[in-house]
Formats: sequence, structure tokens, C-alpha cells
Amino acid sequence: MNTVIETILNHRSIRSFEDKPLTREQIEIIVESAQAASTSSYIQAYSIIGVTDREKKKKLAELAGNQSYVEENGHFFVFCADLFRHEYIGKMEGKDVIPSIESTEKFMVALIDASLAAQNASLAAESLGLGICYIGGIRNNLDEVGKLLNIPERVIPLFGLAVGYPKKMTDKKPRLPLSHVYHEEQYNTDHYEEELTSYNKVISSYYKERTGGKRTDTWTEQMANMLEKQSRMYMKNYVEGQKFNKQ
Amino acid sequence: MNTVIETILNHRSIRSFEDKPLTREQIEIIVESAQAASTSSYIQAYSIIGVTDREKKKKLAELAGNQSYVEENGHFFVFCADLFRHEYIGKMEGKDVIPSIESTEKFMVALIDASLAAQNASLAAESLGLGICYIGGIRNNLDEVGKLLNIPERVIPLFGLAVGYPKKMTDKKPRLPLSHVYHEEQYNTDHYEEELTSYNKVISSYYKERTGGKRTDTWTEQMANMLEKQSRMYMKNYVEGQKFNKQ
Repeated sequence: MNTVIETILNHRSIRSFEDKPLTREQIEIIVESAQAASTSSYIQAYSIIGVTDREKKKKLAELAGNQSYVEENGHFFVFCADLFRHEYIGKMEGKDVIPSIESTEKFMVALIDASLAAQNASLAAESLGLGICYIGGIRNNLDEVGKLLNIPERVIPLFGLAVGYPKKMTDKKPRLPLSHVYHEEQYNTDHYEEELTSYNKVISSYYKERTGGKRTDTWTEQMANMLEKQSRMYMKNYVEGQKFNKQ
Repeated sequence: MNTVIETILNHRSIRSFEDKPLTREQIEIIVESAQAASTSSYIQAYSIIGVTDREKKKKLAELAGNQSYVEENGHFFVFCADLFRHEYIGKMEGKDVIPSIESTEKFMVALIDASLAAQNASLAAESLGLGICYIGGIRNNLDEVGKLLNIPERVIPLFGLAVGYPKKMTDKKPRLPLSHVYHEEQYNTDHYEEELTSYNKVISSYYKERTGGKRTDTWTEQMANMLEKQSRMYMKNYVEGQKFNKQ
């Protein structure tokens, strides 16, 4: 065990922050950390938008489903898949890059690039004693988020990252059994059901303990209920409208 | 600056490893670190396959474009987007989850989840004195990779991660100017061209110095040349064939 692994394993999502802004130095070291992540063929296919304007954060919080910690935090980052830059480069260099940047492959590249960067940013923040919470809720309404942040075509806001000084700590949520997620030599479903059943017991006890018995749902129940509801089904059209994932 | 941020900023992709396997303990702490990453609504939509079989790694190296370090390393991980588990859960719980898991939204969720986990794994490995290299090359031929790793529908191998003891260190590659990637309050392209031009000078000098003047290309040249070539254009069909990103 070392400090890096301790920081990684100690992660929990923080949903209540002190009203204390990050310093310029903190913001820059977080972004620099994001940029240090690996990037597919050096493409650097993402951008990060920092939001501090209170009205804008309030609007983002509403769009993200009234999550107060989107408005109340030390800094709010929005991580975006970005191939606008590469369209621009194509024009600069007189090369036709359009079929390439509209491909599903490059959509995937941009998502992966942005996510690797975001996880570096998160760990850098956590190492500074800050808490973080990823905000997928901004994908509830990307047209509105896009208007608010002046997002052009070929850019997709993927998620927010609320960062700040934790006001209330939360518990670590137990993950799937390692053997269920980690397969040796090949994908293997031999013990799928028993692994899920044993994990369900862990999760059910976890909720029971935290809620004084009020909540006892299992992980598979929680997942099945969530996935039965269709959410953000507009995404395919939105993504194609932003000229990603078209061919 | 602290140890975590130092580890993050010190990253470079390693492409030459000693012939020394990782221990079981190292593998488990790397996977456990991956699992500690944030996951969208607790969905845990990824799996990791560890490959040590020499023949299998040799085959993967060929498929990835003859990258020797895919075969020669301490351990080879394959990170997969995984919603097979959630189809299974739907059946277990008697809920129709199919429209949801076939949506573009959940395709994005699985990619983001897998990537956050992978970056944790990478940093955990680097903190242990190991080197890492992401291998997007496995996406050259996912049908063949899928056969080799017994990949079912609703699972997509996204990238490999070669991990091992570094035999040869590499240089850190300079990233885009922070102000080009980090936007304040809204997406802003006011200084786009001058930022790219100034970055081009940095990259051109970087290559010149490293190659004794043989290579002097700029970043925008490199990107335009890469993106002019259409690569992995089969991806949209493949992804839909795996029942992701369909609606």
C-alpha cells in the first residue's frame, strides 16, 4: 500500500461541500493533472469547462435534476468530448478529416480520452483533501446545457465534476466481487449467478445498516429497477446532431 | 505538490518491459483500485480480462498491429464495456432492461465507467513502480479479439493496458496549452489559432531535439495526417452488432 493507492481506495462521492472556492493554483494543478493522462495517438480529444458563475451553476443544478451540490461546491468542471478542435485542424492543414471525426471509433476515442483525464483530475483533487462527485445528470438535457456553455458542434458535454471541501463525508460503497469483474484469460460467466447473489447479500446488509433497516434492496433489484426505466433516450439523436458517431 | 500529483504528472507510456510477471497481489491491488473509481448510478458497467497466456498475447500483439509490448510485459489487461451483466440481471429480476441497455446513453455510460476504472488501474500500477501503456490497437479487429477472449454480445473490448517493469524509459510528451483545453464559464475559441501555432512550435522543437533534427513535424500536421486516413470505420457496425448504441 502507498499514498496513491490509499487515495484511490479511499474514494467516496461527496455530495455536500463548504462554500469555499478553489484557488487558481488548485484549479490549474487539477487541469494539468487531467492533461497528463494517456491520450489515444496524442489526439487530446477533450475540453474542460470550469464554471464558477452562481447563476450558471444554479441553472446547471436544475438541469441535472435539482442536485444542490452542482450549485454549492468549490468549483464545477464540465468534461467534454471535443473534436471541434480537430475539424479546425483539418481546415488549417487543408486535409479532409470529416469522415474520420464523424466515426463511431473517434466518438469512442473522445469519450475514453475525456474520462481518463477526468479520473486524473478527480484523484489530484482528492489528494489535495478535496472531495469530488461526478455529475452524469448534466446529460438530462444537453441542448440546454450546450446553450448555457456555448457548446459548438463536435463537442459533447459528458459529465460534470463537482469539487470542493467536504462538508459531510459519505461511506464507501462496496463494489462487485473482484472475481466477478476480473476474468482470467477469457470472459467467463461460470459463477455469475452465485457471485451476484453473494454480492446482493453484501449490498442489502450495507443499506440495512445505513438506514436503520428502512432500506434492504439488493444490487440486482436496484439495477433492474433503474434499467427498466428508459432514460435519456434522446442521446443518439443528440450525439449525431453534434456530428459524432455518424458512420 | 504531493505523491499522488507527482505520480500523475510523471506519467509516460512505457513500450518496453522486462520479462517479469506481476504477482497475484499486484494484480489484485490494481483491479481493486480500478473498481474503486466512480461508477454511474452504481452500474459498474465494465469487466477486465487479464491475459498471461503467451500464445494469446502473441496473437493479440499481431492483431494490435505488431506491437511487441502487447506480448512482452508483466501483465496484459483488457478493459471492456460490459452490459451483458445487466441483461443477465434483467432476466434474474424479470424486468425488461433491453431498450435501456441498447441505448447510446448506456453505451456512453459503459465507456466512461470502464475508462475511469482503467485510469485508476494505471495510476495504481505506476505508484508501484510499474510502467503502463494503453493499447487502442486491439480495436483494429474486434471480431478476432472477441473470439480470442470469448467475448459475448453486450461486451466490447475497448483497449488493452500493458503493465510491467519498465526496461526503457520514455520522455513525457508536452500537452496542449492549459488555456486551450480549459475554458472559463463557457466554450471559447477566441485564441484557438494562436494557441495551436504556439503549441506547434513546442512540439516541433520536441521532436527535433529527440530525433537529432530528423523529425520536425507539428502537432496539427501530425493530427491532420492521422485523421485524413480513415481507420476502424467498421466500428459502428461492430458496436451495434454487439447490441450497444442501437437506439
